[in-house]
Amino acid sequence: MPTISVRLLKGRSIDQKREFVEVVTREAASILKCGPDVIDIIFEDVEKHDWAVGGKLASDK
Amino acid sequence: MPTISVRLLKGRSIDQKREFVEVVTREAASILKCGPDVIDIIFEDVEKHDWAVGGKLASDK
Amino acid sequence: MPTISVRLLKGRSIDQKREFVEVVTREAASILKCGPDVIDIIFEDVEKHDWAVGGKLASDK
Amino acid sequence: MPTISVRLLKGRSIDQKREFVEVVTREAASILKCGPDVIDIIFEDVEKHDWAVGGKLASDK
Amino acid sequence: MPTISVRLLKGRSIDQKREFVEVVTREAASILKCGPDVIDIIFEDVEKHDWAVGGKLASDK
Amino acid sequence: MPTISVRLLKGRSIDQKREFVEVVTREAASILKCGPDVIDIIFEDVEKHDWAVGGKLASDK
Repeated sequence: MPTISVRLLKGRSIDQKREFVEVVTREAASILKCGPDVIDIIFEDVEKHDWAVGGKLASDK
Repeated sequence: MPTISVRLLKGRSIDQKREFVEVVTREAASILKCGPDVIDIIFEDVEKHDWAVGGKLASDK
Repeated sequence: MPTISVRLLKGRSIDQKREFVEVVTREAASILKCGPDVIDIIFEDVEKHDWAVGGKLASDK
Repeated sequence: MPTISVRLLKGRSIDQKREFVEVVTREAASILKCGPDVIDIIFEDVEKHDWAVGGKLASDK
Repeated sequence: MPTISVRLLKGRSIDQKREFVEVVTREAASILKCGPDVIDIIFEDVEKHDWAVGGKLASDK
Repeated sequence: MPTISVRLLKGRSIDQKREFVEVVTREAASILKCGPDVIDIIFEDVEKHDWAVGGKLASDK
């Protein structure tokens, strides 16, 4: 049942996402003591003009 | 004030979403004892390559 | 895979939540064309002093 | 560390978002007593057919 | 309709939250061009052992 | 900037969470090509009566 949401700036490739879900699902199942089949991972790509740190949009840096 | 967020794989039609919000708002108002007007429902369409179950992207299945 | 998150003011009973998940899962499966077993519903109870509408905390109304 | 997520109907300009993050980061840092550099603000634009209030999609109003 | 979610480490007072929602609702309404009454703000207090930056729980720092 | 939210049933220990954030931050930094210091991980513990799969609360299983 663990559900892992990953918000990140747009631009990562599907290969990176594929590797991420393989590795993180395996580690999460091992550390949290659950079957890998009950682990969901969802990516939310965020545009640079939709993410600000310190009051500045990432697209303005 | 209840806010209902629905994450689902991309591909459902606007007609399905329209029916969903009609039915679920009516049921939620009745069960949770609140007016329908204070219920928000928001859909988040997720691409197949952004959702993994069991360490595998939905686009790889 | 649909994941339904429900944010609501604290105070609903477990019986109300049980009825909600039974009804909404059945309706969601029927409208969204998926098996009920892949539908997750998660409640997030919010304290009155943690939810504001119109600039006023619900606990101040 | 505060993370502020803003869900809103699509259509606001980048200028509005830029002004929003400048003002809200400054106010949040002052009220919550933290440095502006640890404040993240993320916008989630929502399509009109993905947001319903009172059982009606915003695109149907 | 804008919905603003604020995740922050536990420990802020209700007075700080009250001031935050007053100020941020007023600024948001002005910048995003909407009535204050349609703006929701929800706080999510997070325990120090539930928030990590750089691989370290805040409770371990 | 990646922000990783982990929703899971209540009951995991702080030691499990500590190990999780160490391992996942290291792997995420390596796969997503970013510094570990910009990665946030936040846990959301969910009560068994607040999570349903297949229309059944986890507390009823």
